[in-house]
Amino acid sequence: MPASQRAGEGGSRRGGYLIGLIGSGIGSSLSPALHEREADRLGVRYLYRLLDIDDLALPAAAIGDLLSAARLAGYDGVNVTHPGKQLVLDHLDELSPETADLGAANTVVFTGGRAIGHNTDWSGFARAVGRGLPDASLDAVVLLGAGGAGSAVAHAVLTLGAGHVRIFDLDARRGAALVEALRARFGADRVSGGRLSDGGAELAAALRSADGLVHATPTGMAAHPGLPVPVDLLRPRLWVADVVYRPLDTELVTAARERGCRVLDGGRMAVFQAADSFRLFTGIDPDEEAMMRHFDALVGAAGAGKRDAHARR
Amino acid sequence: MPASQRAGEGGSRRGGYLIGLIGSGIGSSLSPALHEREADRLGVRYLYRLLDIDDLALPAAAIGDLLSAARLAGYDGVNVTHPGKQLVLDHLDELSPETADLGAANTVVFTGGRAIGHNTDWSGFARAVGRGLPDASLDAVVLLGAGGAGSAVAHAVLTLGAGHVRIFDLDARRGAALVEALRARFGADRVSGGRLSDGGAELAAALRSADGLVHATPTGMAAHPGLPVPVDLLRPRLWVADVVYRPLDTELVTAARERGCRVLDGGRMAVFQAADSFRLFTGIDPDEEAMMRHFDALVGAAGAGKRDAHARR
Repeated sequence: MPASQRAGEGGSRRGGYLIGLIGSGIGSSLSPALHEREADRLGVRYLYRLLDIDDLALPAAAIGDLLSAARLAGYDGVNVTHPGKQLVLDHLDELSPETADLGAANTVVFTGGRAIGHNTDWSGFARAVGRGLPDASLDAVVLLGAGGAGSAVAHAVLTLGAGHVRIFDLDARRGAALVEALRARFGADRVSGGRLSDGGAELAAALRSADGLVHATPTGMAAHPGLPVPVDLLRPRLWVADVVYRPLDTELVTAARERGCRVLDGGRMAVFQAADSFRLFTGIDPDEEAMMRHFDALVGAAGAGKRDAHARR
Repeated sequence: MPASQRAGEGGSRRGGYLIGLIGSGIGSSLSPALHEREADRLGVRYLYRLLDIDDLALPAAAIGDLLSAARLAGYDGVNVTHPGKQLVLDHLDELSPETADLGAANTVVFTGGRAIGHNTDWSGFARAVGRGLPDASLDAVVLLGAGGAGSAVAHAVLTLGAGHVRIFDLDARRGAALVEALRARFGADRVSGGRLSDGGAELAAALRSADGLVHATPTGMAAHPGLPVPVDLLRPRLWVADVVYRPLDTELVTAARERGCRVLDGGRMAVFQAADSFRLFTGIDPDEEAMMRHFDALVGAAGAGKRDAHARR
């Protein structure tokens, strides 16, 4: 979708923007606040609605019906989250190349009578790394977690030029499938898989020679407390990126900071994916730093100051 | 729908209000501007979307689908206009008493999992008369036009206490049907029909002894220029209300003013039906005078000053 054309549409319409989020259990999503506040700052009428299949007592398969309803009812676009990112693909007219590669869309733009799928999870993470770890070496990266988030962030670091990404997942088959898919797109020499079935020896070895660790499993969320890797593997020269942002200061983020690592918490990825979606919906460049400050205020981020101190190093 | 309950819902929701207008050829509707401007003044997030069955290339029968889509996609309510006011009734869970009486809804509120039909055409006209012709005699009223608008305004003036309403329509059968329906609700002695097939003699006689004339045909709209009654029937002591508001100064309104009649142009009805809908959607009392000023600005009303001068008499 040409952003300039969308911008033209946006400029000429008087109706503002109507955006939704389709997913399950999304009642506490920060997306409405993030999008609407930025639109308010820009003086753009913007309404961001939660379309929760749980609240509507609908099965996951009804995501297509919800998408059709939103389209018919004049929405400009929707974000899509669990469990819809893959399911939604069957209901789209067109996919961005990265969305097709990843097999998942988190952003759908309705424009010119068509529903076009995008993926700002990967682009959001790529820009979060660029902003939050600007001069970090990407020669050797370890990725923990090969699910949807892992797939997106692996795509991001490889697109950013990572020399080699080593992927670990408790589900060995899922890990191998992601390795294979990434090798096909980025080259066999840039991606490999490791096993976790050996008590962690391979992961430890990989981390000892890695420049950075990207963590993309649920460990560290409120419902899944804990550290995903032994703390003594967090060397000061290792940068650590966590996709978990609730809490912002996961045990991993806290431990890594204490050990002197440069840290990218999950907040930046969350904000940049929202900013990229906002740009796709409106054709307008949001102020990402303003969105970041708003995000920090929303999550009451104790770690936000620390993050910025580290980012400035 | 208890307004207090809606107000409570509105106060607790962070999502603002999402409202639509379902109809045909509604691209130039003033409703989005009227509703959104008032919401802005109140500091309430509000998006009013046009769902035009022509733009969507849908038949009139698809109004039910559009209503379902809006409901599923998180709308708080919709206004409905031509050709949907009757068709929509089949898709509602509940009707206000007046909506059931009139067989037409122009306002649907989605609340508590139900779709509830209201009619603010009649209530808007009733309040327009109360505000714009505050001490006008309603002893004998002539109504020209027995379609949807005529039905609503007849209900309004009879509810306001009109002594007798005499109804004329070129379609004699339609006129007779409205007379019969109103007699059943308001009493046979308060409503009668007149014929136009006699060259206007009956209409002229009725107007000579009437206190007021309500005009509810398309005559005077840009596409239907002309005067609906001979100018010499516009005696200074007759008040004249026109439901046409585009243009605001119809030939009837202009001629009536020139003859010294008190005049209620179509603008007040348009604004008060919007205000009543706004109240139903949000539970919040809008500032109707502010909406009226905004309306005048939108239509570039040359007659607005005259209207107010007359209203103050």
